[in-house]
Amino acid sequence: MDVAALATGVAAGDRRALARAITLVESGRADHRAQALDLLGRLGAGSEGGRQALRLGLSGTPGVGKSTFIESFGLMLTGQGKRVAVLAVDPSSARSGGSILGDKTRMERLSRDPHAFIRPSPSQAQMGGVARRTREAVALCEAAGFDLVLIETVGVGQSETVVAELCDLFLLLLAPAGGDELQGVKRGIMEMADLILINKADGDLKPAALRTMADYAGALRLLRRRPQDPEGFPKAICVSALETLGLAPAWDEMQALARWRQENGHWTARRAAQARHWFEEEVRQGLLAALTRDPVRTRIEELGQAVAQGQLTPEAAAAQLLSLLP
Amino acid sequence: MDVAALATGVAAGDRRALARAITLVESGRADHRAQALDLLGRLGAGSEGGRQALRLGLSGTPGVGKSTFIESFGLMLTGQGKRVAVLAVDPSSARSGGSILGDKTRMERLSRDPHAFIRPSPSQAQMGGVARRTREAVALCEAAGFDLVLIETVGVGQSETVVAELCDLFLLLLAPAGGDELQGVKRGIMEMADLILINKADGDLKPAALRTMADYAGALRLLRRRPQDPEGFPKAICVSALETLGLAPAWDEMQALARWRQENGHWTARRAAQARHWFEEEVRQGLLAALTRDPVRTRIEELGQAVAQGQLTPEAAAAQLLSLLP
Repeated sequence: MDVAALATGVAAGDRRALARAITLVESGRADHRAQALDLLGRLGAGSEGGRQALRLGLSGTPGVGKSTFIESFGLMLTGQGKRVAVLAVDPSSARSGGSILGDKTRMERLSRDPHAFIRPSPSQAQMGGVARRTREAVALCEAAGFDLVLIETVGVGQSETVVAELCDLFLLLLAPAGGDELQGVKRGIMEMADLILINKADGDLKPAALRTMADYAGALRLLRRRPQDPEGFPKAICVSALETLGLAPAWDEMQALARWRQENGHWTARRAAQARHWFEEEVRQGLLAALTRDPVRTRIEELGQAVAQGQLTPEAAAAQLLSLLP
Repeated sequence: MDVAALATGVAAGDRRALARAITLVESGRADHRAQALDLLGRLGAGSEGGRQALRLGLSGTPGVGKSTFIESFGLMLTGQGKRVAVLAVDPSSARSGGSILGDKTRMERLSRDPHAFIRPSPSQAQMGGVARRTREAVALCEAAGFDLVLIETVGVGQSETVVAELCDLFLLLLAPAGGDELQGVKRGIMEMADLILINKADGDLKPAALRTMADYAGALRLLRRRPQDPEGFPKAICVSALETLGLAPAWDEMQALARWRQENGHWTARRAAQARHWFEEEVRQGLLAALTRDPVRTRIEELGQAVAQGQLTPEAAAAQLLSLLP
């Protein structure tokens, strides 16, 4: 593969080159990995000097209208001349073999828009791997000059944490619901959200959407104010992706929040903390990977056998193994 | 400390010696740790040759009546001449400083019973540490000749997983509820349960308890049959800890299940798999602990700084650090 040519293509904003580059960083092959690092290095991707986009995380359980929201919101932004990339983080795809963005027809108009780029979630990966690959895919989208990178995930806990560590702003998309369904959103996920969007605020559901908005606004007021939030944030607002209502005000809120954080040093601080987090996570993963390689793996197998047969306690066996490591 | 005398006391079933021994294994001090390992070695605690108890895990969210259940169930067993130990695993106590069994008055009669031993959860610990200490506390209770060790936890996910890896049978205690509250129990926790007990099947709540039992029995039938279960298990049954109804039948079910698993090799296989699991977990924890010691810790700090400032990517910094380790 001609990595130099690929880098030129990505830097020129060529979407096919970008797609090939993401495939490269997603590959598990050692030679591909070396090429991927070469590519990222050439593009200065992910480093401070490189191009940067607004990184938006978006979470919501199935059925809240994530695809419709992304399509409407994305088209509004491309209509303003912005270039929009959409990536998916889907831990469940590891099992199902499926992909939350696998069917691009879910966002038919946006996927045909020359200012947009939609990338389904890789089909098989563990969470650690997903994080690294998504991080590198974000960096590639930025190097390709996209103004906004939207990272979509489903509401299952662990993937939200990953996305929150990858994005500048975290959006939580909810459907209108009765007051007691407030419980359905985990407190931890609410605490990550910078903006809660109640979707489907149209037709018959509008009153329920307004009630849900009020419920969440109330709940958000009960949470401790975070240093990275100006007065009034995090906020809950209503949108209708179907009728494209409320999307412009939602975008205004995101920009206002982004601007405040940039002016008050929180923007840079968050990215720095994220970079540090991913470094430490890479170290942990790398260290644990050593356990899966010989000779350590064989010794673990032998000691595990002795433990299972009751010849050694777990602690004594672990101490024996760890004494082999410096 | 006279470890030999302590070992003699524990082996004689002395409850004060047992309490001191558990305090010793809970200590974070290096000299205490050495004494704890000496003690466990002298007692043969946790090894195949040692005394063994039936290890019962019990989970349930606050309000389902766990204390009342443990008191009634425990008193029934001590009344039959059995010796019963109760331990708690409470991950939240790390933050609150509290303890789910901290107030022994919650089980006033059982705590005064000479055949019972109740141990609150250690007040400050991370999950990894909790697992090891609880495992060692279980081993000490067995060495002290207890017939049954009940390990209690609250329903918050991670602690259930720990308890499930420590026990022979996992009980899930639930309160009567409407049909749609079935959703409240995480699927993962249902899949761990060997027996679901619907508590408070008394007075006004009895019809609701019966309905809940039917709902869960139906849900359990939808789950894939596990090799470690005989026909009809896992099972959902009603109890009233308050009126001590259904406790004897519940105990019969537990014994029937235990016997079947013993006769079919699943009992030994489970304990062997658990021992292997804890060995591997100890290795992982031990390996990660190396990151918190110098010189590695200092180097992580320096590289983390460089990453935060954008001078290195997380991947490049991690590769640098890992190259220092063999």
